[in-house]
Amino acid sequence: MNRSAKRINIKDVAAQAGVHASTVSRVLNPDTVSMVSVAVAEKVIKIAREMGYQPSAIAAGLRTGRSYTVGVLIPDLTNPIFPHIVRGIERTLDQEGYIAVIADSDNSRKNEHAILDSMQARRVDGLILATAHRKDALVDSCIAESIPIVLVNRTTDTHAATEVINDDEWGIGLAVEHLVQLGHRRIAFLGGPLDTSTGRDRQRAFTKYGRADRFEFDPELLVDCRAFTESEGYRGFASLLDKGREFSAVVAANDLLALGGYDALGEAGMQCPRDISVTGFNDMLFMDRLRPPLTTVHIPLDEMGVKAAELLLSLIRDPAMETTSVKLAPRLVVRGSTAAPKH
Amino acid sequence: MNRSAKRINIKDVAAQAGVHASTVSRVLNPDTVSMVSVAVAEKVIKIAREMGYQPSAIAAGLRTGRSYTVGVLIPDLTNPIFPHIVRGIERTLDQEGYIAVIADSDNSRKNEHAILDSMQARRVDGLILATAHRKDALVDSCIAESIPIVLVNRTTDTHAATEVINDDEWGIGLAVEHLVQLGHRRIAFLGGPLDTSTGRDRQRAFTKYGRADRFEFDPELLVDCRAFTESEGYRGFASLLDKGREFSAVVAANDLLALGGYDALGEAGMQCPRDISVTGFNDMLFMDRLRPPLTTVHIPLDEMGVKAAELLLSLIRDPAMETTSVKLAPRLVVRGSTAAPKH
Repeated sequence: MNRSAKRINIKDVAAQAGVHASTVSRVLNPDTVSMVSVAVAEKVIKIAREMGYQPSAIAAGLRTGRSYTVGVLIPDLTNPIFPHIVRGIERTLDQEGYIAVIADSDNSRKNEHAILDSMQARRVDGLILATAHRKDALVDSCIAESIPIVLVNRTTDTHAATEVINDDEWGIGLAVEHLVQLGHRRIAFLGGPLDTSTGRDRQRAFTKYGRADRFEFDPELLVDCRAFTESEGYRGFASLLDKGREFSAVVAANDLLALGGYDALGEAGMQCPRDISVTGFNDMLFMDRLRPPLTTVHIPLDEMGVKAAELLLSLIRDPAMETTSVKLAPRLVVRGSTAAPKH
Repeated sequence: MNRSAKRINIKDVAAQAGVHASTVSRVLNPDTVSMVSVAVAEKVIKIAREMGYQPSAIAAGLRTGRSYTVGVLIPDLTNPIFPHIVRGIERTLDQEGYIAVIADSDNSRKNEHAILDSMQARRVDGLILATAHRKDALVDSCIAESIPIVLVNRTTDTHAATEVINDDEWGIGLAVEHLVQLGHRRIAFLGGPLDTSTGRDRQRAFTKYGRADRFEFDPELLVDCRAFTESEGYRGFASLLDKGREFSAVVAANDLLALGGYDALGEAGMQCPRDISVTGFNDMLFMDRLRPPLTTVHIPLDEMGVKAAELLLSLIRDPAMETTSVKLAPRLVVRGSTAAPKH
């Protein structure tokens, strides 16, 4: 910022404290403060505070090799799950003096690479990626270049990076068991994109419970959507109806797909849950206020952000840290979109 | 990032191009590229690209005095209006090679100051603030220190900073006229915090239309909420009901207040719109999917972000630019929460 005229620098603090500038520099760097006596350190800190000394993070970064900045890549900030994850990340980073640079790739792989370039040019100390695909060149290159990264919400097939994800198999199991308890036997699945771990794992879990005869499994009742969006949910649900096969409930791989399902269902003159029960996944904002309120799988978004930030800070401090996988347990929230089947 | 071993630097590009490093530096800086012949500039750019040269923004910042980073302060990222504003800001900044550092103050003035310190330490080139209060020490100090700032969504009483806001008077007028056309005469107002421009301007507009006899104005039917939240809307609406005065419609100063109103209304055994019509403000995500879908005032969120970013970039380039006020026109979206009064 354009305030150089007023800016107090290290030399000013040193002059006031009667010590050499390098001493001030040592005191203000957590890695070197132990090289200075406690009495001197306390004096320097007190004077620096009184004078309103504001260390330049750019200059500190050049000295310590750290920018105290972390990049956060989000596929779509307007998807209401991400602001909650970001808030958990920011709160945790802030406690350690780090700041987050948040970028929204608008679901484009091309953007992701441009954003990464831009973040690298700013020498971020590490990255939290919510954008991972099962095969992900961005993740691979970060690993190859030893850039500290943590994946959040989604992961890659290799699991080569530290990750904080949901237990998707457990979550789908909760939705399936709830419908089975209500008496549903013919259950359809509105799946997400299979190139994401969440899309693949949720579909795989549904298939697993079906093949274990928890319900009458019919592979024709599985539909893949190309994206986790309302419009794809609408398209997917409409294509399910077009097949003309009997079903009384739908497990959707996320809430937005379920909402698209609501639209297709309404357009076909059917009612939820009277004609078809619907479950979602994520428990996004306002899902309790819909017509009907959505029965869904609640995931701990804030906790995911906190854990991801904690792991990244550990990785930045100890790049040799072992790759870790944290899997958080979701829980079912039963609302008005599920009921016993008609017949 | 820890990739110094592989990093191509200016000297490598210079050696390959057969020119001096300072020539490469001039070519890669938009302010000095004109000092170099077109032929040499083209050659250097071609070679830099082929070698995968990645300029360090920190180093470039120290050379040009710019960080190409803009700070964005949001009062609450989980309020679904902000991600859309942020997306407009990011897209616009990105086109000019700038990056946004987004920070969420969690509605706390204390946090705002800490965040500003942290952003100043990182020498952001300017700030976009969505956090303004009518009296705002943060805004005052940015102006005093000639830090380029743009206020978005809210502004201060002084209007001393460049701002991109909504025409709140127009918006409230749309809601009031809609209710009047439906036949409502006794209309209540669920207002926002009066220390924000949006809270004050929306209340002032409602009072103005009332005093102009567009409906039977009753000052007892105006309630102020302490924050734009569902819980405050609930509390405010309940206190309206407690007054025991007759009203058939409520204009809420934002959607979250209206949702809190829905809750209080339901708890009192009343139905919307059968017993009471309700209007919101903002048209947040999923307002079309509520029980009942909310009639509300739609504001152009993405456009607000785009305009704010454009103005900030102009200010950074020309700090002497005159203070500008952009007021965007909202529009009414009529849905199921409004109907003719019962009697």
